[in-house]
Amino acid sequence: MNAVASDLIQKTSELSSEVTRPIPGSKKIHVEGSRPDIRVPMREIALSDTPKLFGAEINAPFTVYDTSGPYTDPAAMIDLVKGLPPLRAGWIAERGDTEQLAGLSSEYGLKRAADARLDAVRFPNLHAPRRAVSGANVSQMHYAKRGIITPEMEYIAIRENQKLDALREQGLLKQHPGQDFGANIQQVITPEFVRDEVARGRAIIPNNINHPESEPMIIGRNFLVKINANIGNSAVTSSIAEEVEKMVWAIRWGADTVMDLSTGKHIHETREWILRNSPVPIGTVPIYQALEKVDGIAEELTWEIFRDTLIEQAEQGVDYFTIHAGVRLPYVPLSAKRVTGIVSRGGSIMAKWCLAHHKESFLYERFEDICEIMKAYDVAFSLGDGLRPGSIADANDAAQFAELETLGELTKIAWKHDVQTMIEGPGHVPMQLIKENMDKQLRECGEAPFYTLGPLTTDIAPGYDHITSAIGAAMIGWYGTAMLCYVTPKEHLGLPNKQDVRDGIITYKIAAHAADLAKGHPGAQARDNALSKARFEFRWTDQFNLGLDPEKAQEFHDETLPKDAAKHAHFCSMCGPHFCSMKITQDVRDYAAEHGVDETAALEKGMQEKAREFREQGGEVYKPE
Amino acid sequence: MNAVASDLIQKTSELSSEVTRPIPGSKKIHVEGSRPDIRVPMREIALSDTPKLFGAEINAPFTVYDTSGPYTDPAAMIDLVKGLPPLRAGWIAERGDTEQLAGLSSEYGLKRAADARLDAVRFPNLHAPRRAVSGANVSQMHYAKRGIITPEMEYIAIRENQKLDALREQGLLKQHPGQDFGANIQQVITPEFVRDEVARGRAIIPNNINHPESEPMIIGRNFLVKINANIGNSAVTSSIAEEVEKMVWAIRWGADTVMDLSTGKHIHETREWILRNSPVPIGTVPIYQALEKVDGIAEELTWEIFRDTLIEQAEQGVDYFTIHAGVRLPYVPLSAKRVTGIVSRGGSIMAKWCLAHHKESFLYERFEDICEIMKAYDVAFSLGDGLRPGSIADANDAAQFAELETLGELTKIAWKHDVQTMIEGPGHVPMQLIKENMDKQLRECGEAPFYTLGPLTTDIAPGYDHITSAIGAAMIGWYGTAMLCYVTPKEHLGLPNKQDVRDGIITYKIAAHAADLAKGHPGAQARDNALSKARFEFRWTDQFNLGLDPEKAQEFHDETLPKDAAKHAHFCSMCGPHFCSMKITQDVRDYAAEHGVDETAALEKGMQEKAREFREQGGEVYKPE
Repeated sequence: MNAVASDLIQKTSELSSEVTRPIPGSKKIHVEGSRPDIRVPMREIALSDTPKLFGAEINAPFTVYDTSGPYTDPAAMIDLVKGLPPLRAGWIAERGDTEQLAGLSSEYGLKRAADARLDAVRFPNLHAPRRAVSGANVSQMHYAKRGIITPEMEYIAIRENQKLDALREQGLLKQHPGQDFGANIQQVITPEFVRDEVARGRAIIPNNINHPESEPMIIGRNFLVKINANIGNSAVTSSIAEEVEKMVWAIRWGADTVMDLSTGKHIHETREWILRNSPVPIGTVPIYQALEKVDGIAEELTWEIFRDTLIEQAEQGVDYFTIHAGVRLPYVPLSAKRVTGIVSRGGSIMAKWCLAHHKESFLYERFEDICEIMKAYDVAFSLGDGLRPGSIADANDAAQFAELETLGELTKIAWKHDVQTMIEGPGHVPMQLIKENMDKQLRECGEAPFYTLGPLTTDIAPGYDHITSAIGAAMIGWYGTAMLCYVTPKEHLGLPNKQDVRDGIITYKIAAHAADLAKGHPGAQARDNALSKARFEFRWTDQFNLGLDPEKAQEFHDETLPKDAAKHAHFCSMCGPHFCSMKITQDVRDYAAEHGVDETAALEKGMQEKAREFREQGGEVYKPE
Repeated sequence: MNAVASDLIQKTSELSSEVTRPIPGSKKIHVEGSRPDIRVPMREIALSDTPKLFGAEINAPFTVYDTSGPYTDPAAMIDLVKGLPPLRAGWIAERGDTEQLAGLSSEYGLKRAADARLDAVRFPNLHAPRRAVSGANVSQMHYAKRGIITPEMEYIAIRENQKLDALREQGLLKQHPGQDFGANIQQVITPEFVRDEVARGRAIIPNNINHPESEPMIIGRNFLVKINANIGNSAVTSSIAEEVEKMVWAIRWGADTVMDLSTGKHIHETREWILRNSPVPIGTVPIYQALEKVDGIAEELTWEIFRDTLIEQAEQGVDYFTIHAGVRLPYVPLSAKRVTGIVSRGGSIMAKWCLAHHKESFLYERFEDICEIMKAYDVAFSLGDGLRPGSIADANDAAQFAELETLGELTKIAWKHDVQTMIEGPGHVPMQLIKENMDKQLRECGEAPFYTLGPLTTDIAPGYDHITSAIGAAMIGWYGTAMLCYVTPKEHLGLPNKQDVRDGIITYKIAAHAADLAKGHPGAQARDNALSKARFEFRWTDQFNLGLDPEKAQEFHDETLPKDAAKHAHFCSMCGPHFCSMKITQDVRDYAAEHGVDETAALEKGMQEKAREFREQGGEVYKPE
């Protein structure tokens, strides 16, 4: 047992009390697909009955999308040192287009594997990597274009539907019409629809064949809006065990994917631990590690080092790579007069390389070579926005949009190779300039999924950038962004701790859900309705448990009214027992029921004249509900 | 010295260390108007010079709007027991249209004054109230319509301009074009523009002649977006001293107005303490106190009790009254089938009264009588949205819009009396339905200022409703809402503590500023630019101090890099010293400067062919900057 492993074993027991306990009121369920090995996890929230005062209804349990993996399942045995079970291994193997390699293909990977000094931090249960057999393309897009519905696609269809049929039967699907800005939101997601969206390039399924532990998920604007959480150590702080714990913590609160942005020591080993224990897709920015390999000197980067890094990470199982291939030499000077220059780390590295050599970026020139690697493992592109604006002043400028146009050009090349592709977006953008970003991205990049960081809608609130950016994230999600990269309160100031990660994720779940509601995803409003009904009926515990963070809600409630009885109280701390609008509303309902004072009656009983006036003025608002 | 007074004296010394200390890096300045008693307070943030690495510029101090009153001025003597100096008293007196009364006009007020048991909680330095002389109308709208520019209007023009001239001279006014949805944003606010907006009813200046301590401010969509913070005790918790402290705390962080929503004991006395010490306008919901007077039994409310309450509060100095006169009998049944019924306390009280008596609301029927009271003291209407939706399900429904139409009808009546009027708005509204609210409000209410609560864009995040609502608030502020009522993280769960108040206010300052940026208020972006420049140049302390919450920013920064030297470090904790995109950008700039690699050069040096391609593909984005 090595040092990190024993540290992680220690962490595992800690996790059992803090990070892996079931979400209050919830249990893990699985919905089976067309074959027994398609078992889609969901979280079922138990609800109590409506109190007599409000009509004594039975409230069926409510099912929600669940990103937390086996960690919140008391029935699952968690062993971080072993890693999660490879649930997709059978699907990958049965396609017969991959082979298990004798060893690693990356030189760097081999060197690390042979270095005994690393035994102390190495994941102890490594498997040999898989790769496409010679000439094969194992991307989900490739299968999709050939009309094949993979188990991954079926899994996703079930997952996205979130038991909508059950909701429909319960009459809980009533919602406002959405406005989807030209997207194509379905009432029911079929496996065929998943396939078709992936084939068109409008959605991606990031799942490297070397990350069979991942539960398939999809990123595309006709599906639920997803969020990403960044973790990763730096030269300044953090350790492997902390990063694994952050990943488990992030998915507990709802991260759909996790990016490992480590730049410090042991990047390779940290990533292995994270991948083997992650049920969500993992993304990276390979140039970070490539730069470490040349001791931080950007000019010394080469295609060969970068290529080896891609292979190294692809064979570990990274599901998507951020690649800043749109930072081209002629665009670099466009950034020189900006208020905040180039704020993307990857972008600035490549800019420096281009200028130092006065050469076009090797990422751009070798793009087709990169595609060859991507399709041999089914790694998806996340085409990085290295010239994204780092301030309101720099939003939507020439540098940013020149790069976006190049990303569109590269998307078409990636699609020629059937490589799944999404496009990264800004950044810092004031509200009135957000939609232009979305519209241009859709146009330039052929509707490939957009994956944005915020955008932050103002620069003046360091310490609160989860909020400045959630405003922009909700809006751009509504306009069509498929995945939102979270921002924590520590953005611009420091490295996020666990509380910051939680705050960032919940904030982004809010933005994503607000976008789902606005786009009109079927069933998006059902959870709002269930929670609001619980709120109205003073089912306090149900209100907490239907929320995005039941623990925080209960904690806040208990601060003012700590007594357990208050959970059943038909009033709350804001107005006190004799001053409650919910109670008065119920009185209104009772009175209306008792006296037959419905709309018509109210208008007839001596109110005819005023009623006529009212109808004349605004009668059209009396729509039947 | 009575008990509360001595408690408050104790609080005063506490305040000196926690609540009244100057904001880091800032000092209070005053800009004088056309006469020496017009002295408009602002906050000046000192900035350090740009480090040599980035060009060694001198950065002039940056001036921001300041709501905090004398409390953040080390030169001011704060004595809560005496109250603030009555800065507007001379302006009010010199108009010669008011008289100091011999005593209170309200029966209830007289009863409280005569009750010796209340001596222990009474504000000790009461003054006799003023009222318009018989037949006079002392509203700012009345003066405005007669072409009079009051000192209040001039004060506001200076305040809104925030030393724009100085910014313009420094070349700091460069910003993106805004999109103002038909508003009429000025480059420079003149006193005449203020007058004209007030005369048209597009803006209000809430300042009761009995609240001469207040620093004039304006609410209207052609001015900076304002925010309101609610405080107030309830039957469950809180005391007078705490409420006064909350008010001081709220304005420290940027509350433009404060509503005292007390529903517990000593409402009258609490309000007096708050008013005498508040430099910002104070709003109330008089029906709350009226209900207390009939022991919480809505049916027993009468016009006489309500009228006496209005006069009682008007003579104390309340600047605006929320009055739910749009909750009419025929609308009440429209709420019976809602998911969350009537969630406004005032609305539910009136609904219950209407149904119980099967009579039209006395607020609606006596509206002109109410106007007579308002204009005798210059109290502004905040026409309450008693039927606002309390859930996404109920957004934009028949009940809500029927009431809004009536509020439009009442606005016109108020304007006939030259009574300043704003309109309250929702509530809970999904993003795609927000703009309809704004558009309908402008249309129905003749462009009277809209004052919205959020709206919350989803119901599913109890514990985070400052965020669910900030998304809606920023959007509706952009669309034209003039004032945003804050929501704290405790919304729906409990009473906010000081930390919650701070979180709610900063969150709403973000929403308001994001809206100002998007609308294109001149100078709105200057602060973003100044902060971003400081960020790029690693002027850490400037970055903190230019933010909305310098203390929080510094605290977060210190968590990761606590050493004082790190405040001067040219890197940050996110990437470490050797991995910094800011540093690389500077290298890019240096390289570009040294080698003359500007746009043209880059394209010429061996890149002609690619350059031509680029120009053909997207050359139009190369706009001169």
